[in-house]
Amino acid sequence: MKLHLKNCRYIDMRSMTVRSGDICTDNGVFSYVGESAPHGEYDRVIEMNGDLVIPGFCNAHTHSPMVFLRSFAEDLPLDRWLSEAVFPSEAKLTPEDNYIFTKLAVCEYVSNGITSCFDMYFYPEAMAEAFAETGFRCTFCGAMNNFSQSPEMLEDCYIKLNSFNPLISYKLGFHAEYTTSLDLMKAVSQLAHKYKAPVWCHNSETKSEVEDCISRYGMTPTGIMDSIGMFDFGGGGYHCIYLSDEDMDIFSRRGLTAVTNPCSNLKLASGIADLTRLKEKGIRLAVGTDGAASNNALDMFREMYLCSVLQKLKYSDASAMPAADVLYAAIVGGSEAMGIDSGFIEVGRNADFAVIDMKAPNMRPENDIVKNLVFSGSGANVLMTAVNGRILYEKGEYFIGEDIDSLYRKAEKICERIFSDK
Amino acid sequence: MKLHLKNCRYIDMRSMTVRSGDICTDNGVFSYVGESAPHGEYDRVIEMNGDLVIPGFCNAHTHSPMVFLRSFAEDLPLDRWLSEAVFPSEAKLTPEDNYIFTKLAVCEYVSNGITSCFDMYFYPEAMAEAFAETGFRCTFCGAMNNFSQSPEMLEDCYIKLNSFNPLISYKLGFHAEYTTSLDLMKAVSQLAHKYKAPVWCHNSETKSEVEDCISRYGMTPTGIMDSIGMFDFGGGGYHCIYLSDEDMDIFSRRGLTAVTNPCSNLKLASGIADLTRLKEKGIRLAVGTDGAASNNALDMFREMYLCSVLQKLKYSDASAMPAADVLYAAIVGGSEAMGIDSGFIEVGRNADFAVIDMKAPNMRPENDIVKNLVFSGSGANVLMTAVNGRILYEKGEYFIGEDIDSLYRKAEKICERIFSDK
Repeated sequence: MKLHLKNCRYIDMRSMTVRSGDICTDNGVFSYVGESAPHGEYDRVIEMNGDLVIPGFCNAHTHSPMVFLRSFAEDLPLDRWLSEAVFPSEAKLTPEDNYIFTKLAVCEYVSNGITSCFDMYFYPEAMAEAFAETGFRCTFCGAMNNFSQSPEMLEDCYIKLNSFNPLISYKLGFHAEYTTSLDLMKAVSQLAHKYKAPVWCHNSETKSEVEDCISRYGMTPTGIMDSIGMFDFGGGGYHCIYLSDEDMDIFSRRGLTAVTNPCSNLKLASGIADLTRLKEKGIRLAVGTDGAASNNALDMFREMYLCSVLQKLKYSDASAMPAADVLYAAIVGGSEAMGIDSGFIEVGRNADFAVIDMKAPNMRPENDIVKNLVFSGSGANVLMTAVNGRILYEKGEYFIGEDIDSLYRKAEKICERIFSDK
Repeated sequence: MKLHLKNCRYIDMRSMTVRSGDICTDNGVFSYVGESAPHGEYDRVIEMNGDLVIPGFCNAHTHSPMVFLRSFAEDLPLDRWLSEAVFPSEAKLTPEDNYIFTKLAVCEYVSNGITSCFDMYFYPEAMAEAFAETGFRCTFCGAMNNFSQSPEMLEDCYIKLNSFNPLISYKLGFHAEYTTSLDLMKAVSQLAHKYKAPVWCHNSETKSEVEDCISRYGMTPTGIMDSIGMFDFGGGGYHCIYLSDEDMDIFSRRGLTAVTNPCSNLKLASGIADLTRLKEKGIRLAVGTDGAASNNALDMFREMYLCSVLQKLKYSDASAMPAADVLYAAIVGGSEAMGIDSGFIEVGRNADFAVIDMKAPNMRPENDIVKNLVFSGSGANVLMTAVNGRILYEKGEYFIGEDIDSLYRKAEKICERIFSDK
């Protein structure tokens, strides 16, 4: 697929400036980025009339199939929500269910300009099929804990899914310290050393998680994991709300990424991650939606907004966490975390991009386009989303290899089965 | 204009349940709401295929023309933002500028399913022209302070704008205690008694505002205003973050409405209003976007989301502030605050409504439609917005009596003039 996007504007993510010109794609990557594309044969030439091309959002933490739990049992205290709603429902999921729900999540991702996700859930092989069939890019992270998956399965997935499809990759990982025994964590660390690979997990999402870990090991989750060599080849953590200063120093020393999930953290009443301090310490930031069960949208615009304004609240300082830093984290930070070559509109890189409607009233006037994106942008502004040079979404239509109405029917049917006999 | 919305679903705001059937409008009001509309002559019959009709959002606090300051000078500390960016720019505004910027705001409102706003700004006559011409419903509130407008002008506007156009009404009001002398506030109170009318103003938006008032008068803003009879005929306050328990008792006793503006309160680092306590005390709640300069979107979906999740954060309780309460505040609460007969889809009431796309992935599955609206809904889901039975927005097209591209050009030109010699 050779695309020619004519007369667009696009964001240079290095300088955070907006440039004008043409963009072309070929064979899944950007083949031209500049003032005026050379004549040539294209499958499609699109007149952009100044609309804005951005690298697609890289959703750096999610559990895609959890869309099935959207609005299922909200407004419950966290423990009851987990024990009465989430866990019993999840226990009924089959690989085929996760395959369908993954496709449903992909529709929502692309409708919001998201082009890749870093996903932790079970039945990753079935999910990988779904991602690959829709044409969406996914990096998986192991979801092992005391109750499901195993070090052997992690290694198996690591080998299989890293050579399954160019759109799919797999990182070592486990659910979290509080759900994973020290022996299992040591086994992950051994795999990290065997493959010289980074490791990812939920980290310091709640205060009690950290307190319990300290009473268990005399160390924070970051501390105990680092002490067994977990991060000798990098990686990072999801949520990262209750990191101590020493934890942040470990993140800094090991080159770890802190993935922030502000919507989920508010909705589950977990707290506000200290992005300001993380940034001061030079720690790489990325942004994720978490699963739809606790968000409930898969919308990076809302995450970006909160990344900035919650820091302003936390520090009582309207100048905290500027828009450009947030946009960088939501795109480049996520791309680097997943180890994919997206995040910049540059020749040779993955042609993962979204087109933003600059003729929408919330994008006017154009006092500052980056700020407009972060502070007033929404999924309503996404005209088109393409992954690997292939258009998956355009003006309300989905091109994911399956009719969306049929997909909805299948999803509702599975929900009926799962929720009928609760 | 007689519309027939066929085979829709709609929200009964009294029971917060979703019903199925037909809805008709005639002469600006709902003329039929039920299972199947009678045969008749309609200007347009629309097959809805189960899409959802909701009463339009009633944006209960805004400064519409401030769209011109969107993304102009963000990420600045509040005092520098006001003194260096907002005030000098506002000083250059003409009535004609506000007329144009009001129309720009209307486009954004209707794109997000908002059908009315409660607006406080200067040059209200020029703004009223703009609202009336576009077909949008607006209740104004006086914006008097020590530096602009006067009690005489309030009275003049009160008389003129309350008989100007059926879409327009006007409430007594002033900017805030901290910008308005006691003599001027007393003059407003006299007008309230003369016209047996409610009074509205910014109230307890920041901690320092309340502290300063206490050192000035030995009373909180609510206390001093109530002591001069300001609220003898009702009214309410915007923001209401730092209300004391006694203030809330006054709100309760006087039947006042607390209008909350969570996005603006985060972005300006003001704080989180205690909606939970206000609700416990039975105080009527409404929701507003505030102006685009401090938000930066005019999007009630984002406000609704934050109304709920910020309470969860504030109380460390994921069950705080359920979705249905928030939806009620964003629609019925605002309608009642403005004194307009919108807010319910019932025969004889204003046909102010929005149509929500139930085939969007973020609305699936349909575990709970009200929760879907509040927790995952967005402006992207708005297919149509109608005010007074007239469609102002439909699938990306605006029907506001003016070409939107021409409107954008006019707005950008004014911005150039205002910002060029800053």
